Amino acid sequence: MKLDSQDLADLAVGAAFLGTGGGGDPYIGRQMVQICLDKGLEVDLVDPDTLKDDDFVIPTAMMGAPTVLVEKVPSGEEAVHSLKRLERRLGRTATHTMPIEVGGINSTIPLVVGARLGLPVVDADGMGRAFPHLEMETFGVYGVPGCPMVVSNEWGDSALIEATDNRVMEWLSRGVAIRMGGAAYIAEYAMSGADVKRTAVPRTMSLAIRIGRMLREAKASHRNPFDALLGLLPDTLYHYGRIIFAGKIADMRRETRNGFSLGTARIDGLGRWKGVMEIEIQNENLIARVGGEVRAIVPDLICIMDSETAEPITTENLRYGQRVTVMAVSVPEIMRTPEALAVFGPSCFGLKEPYVKIEELPA
Amino acid sequence: MKLDSQDLADLAVGAAFLGTGGGGDPYIGRQMVQICLDKGLEVDLVDPDTLKDDDFVIPTAMMGAPTVLVEKVPSGEEAVHSLKRLERRLGRTATHTMPIEVGGINSTIPLVVGARLGLPVVDADGMGRAFPHLEMETFGVYGVPGCPMVVSNEWGDSALIEATDNRVMEWLSRGVAIRMGGAAYIAEYAMSGADVKRTAVPRTMSLAIRIGRMLREAKASHRNPFDALLGLLPDTLYHYGRIIFAGKIADMRRETRNGFSLGTARIDGLGRWKGVMEIEIQNENLIARVGGEVRAIVPDLICIMDSETAEPITTENLRYGQRVTVMAVSVPEIMRTPEALAVFGPSCFGLKEPYVKIEELPA
Repeated sequence: MKLDSQDLADLAVGAAFLGTGGGGDPYIGRQMVQICLDKGLEVDLVDPDTLKDDDFVIPTAMMGAPTVLVEKVPSGEEAVHSLKRLERRLGRTATHTMPIEVGGINSTIPLVVGARLGLPVVDADGMGRAFPHLEMETFGVYGVPGCPMVVSNEWGDSALIEATDNRVMEWLSRGVAIRMGGAAYIAEYAMSGADVKRTAVPRTMSLAIRIGRMLREAKASHRNPFDALLGLLPDTLYHYGRIIFAGKIADMRRETRNGFSLGTARIDGLGRWKGVMEIEIQNENLIARVGGEVRAIVPDLICIMDSETAEPITTENLRYGQRVTVMAVSVPEIMRTPEALAVFGPSCFGLKEPYVKIEELPA
Repeated sequence: MKLDSQDLADLAVGAAFLGTGGGGDPYIGRQMVQICLDKGLEVDLVDPDTLKDDDFVIPTAMMGAPTVLVEKVPSGEEAVHSLKRLERRLGRTATHTMPIEVGGINSTIPLVVGARLGLPVVDADGMGRAFPHLEMETFGVYGVPGCPMVVSNEWGDSALIEATDNRVMEWLSRGVAIRMGGAAYIAEYAMSGADVKRTAVPRTMSLAIRIGRMLREAKASHRNPFDALLGLLPDTLYHYGRIIFAGKIADMRRETRNGFSLGTARIDGLGRWKGVMEIEIQNENLIARVGGEVRAIVPDLICIMDSETAEPITTENLRYGQRVTVMAVSVPEIMRTPEALAVFGPSCFGLKEPYVKIEELPA
């Protein structure tokens, strides 16, 4: 499937939704791919089922705090550089690239890499959403090592990390990314086509495009965009969703620390929504509570959207006074196994609350 | 020249002297090499003049804060691992290893690597003393790139850094070393035999052994060890030295920050030495002042020695109440050129005072 400008616009919106607040500003990523299209380059998204078992896929991404990215816009060459270094280390040429997460800029970095190198991009990812750590990938959960991996910056400096464990990879590469100014570009989890089919969350890129298109079309035809979106979900691996709160942002606390955007959003309820919702953020929205009661918890999606336009709002764009609607969505089963929860469940973020599926939480 | 246990004991003392307080505890490094000798391995130190121009030398070292090293003793395999990774990256096998600095543990790490791999160790280094930063090497001053370089830890994790500049190499690899617990093991500045002869400070290892032997023999024959040492210098590239102060350590301030040991030593004068000497430390002794007047300044050596035994004292072993004698020594001319001072002169450490050779400073 060759993507056009409209697809990119829809992808930016849908990826911001699936990114649950994280993954960086979708606008910047979209512009980077648009420049490729304007140059006549092709962006080719391919279904994971079309992969041959011995295809060789190198995922590419940005790592760092989204708040930094807004001030330090990438050229697109950084992630290409990382992929090329990794190819040289492995002595093998990639047949495809792929996202490691769906969300904001990391849905688009592999599109830029694919366009520049003439590589198709696999319609799948390793998080099924956005997560703050590189070990939090279904690839690793199901046995694909993240290393060797490469981190590069815009000056052509790079570090090739060979860690014995994906958590150590995250720890060391994050140290490099911080010293590269808080944002850097990576290639990691190189794997076979067979491993992609076994370990990736499939069709998340095309789902993001469908979500963006659905919201756009609902708006154009004056339908309720939230209803339209909730109507789309049962037909996908993210089969369940509901609105868990709506109100006005009363307080935003945020800081950038150790290379992450941390914060808390407080939302005063409006209309039928009573009380105050507090959403804790570590790059992404992790947990939503009202009066101390959990209303949704990681890894399920917690999406803060503009109440008027249904536009998903990334954490760095949350502002005092915005009227927002919060939607929670179930994640695919591959992300809800005990193995997966051991890597990106609530306890991995220091949360005391156990994981309870959104379908099973009281509304 | 095959080194024996006595040479190692002498080297530890002499390297602590040339290290001007830095380079780590000499005892730990000496034990690491002794274990190699006990296993029947050979430690072969070779003169740089014996190198063929197309020999291939990979220097090895520890990087990090000496204060950390005392608590996290290396096995010796870490630096071997870094050298092997670098060989793989460069597609070439090292004919020799070499120190990057003479001082404490970094005089001995290459001996361990050489013994384990059966490689001769070049009798030369890249600092002619100890310095806190990896770009502060005569290798780099005279055009040898530090990268690609490898940082490894005791678990077999590594990062291969390819930086466009030796300062960036230092910055990125330091970030990795900090995340490896504050001490890590490196291979860097891979170079030809011709480049060693052109850029290294020659015969610093054998000089350290000579210094250690001289101090030992002076003690055994009840000669004044300070006089003996000052008598040795004119015959070396470090041709000038003098005692600049003696007294009692009245105050030690120190902290470990950003992977470095920072501090200040205050010494109250005794006997003919009036006033208070303050010595500023960044891993090494950088500047000695009395009443604000400079008595010695980097890159010249500032060595704090036990007043009784003339044992050089590394910064982490300085203690309140110790009676110490401070000796300043001129460094080789290769370390005093404008190019060299631009990389490791006083301004590189944030000092306002210009470099004045110890020979030209008022006593």
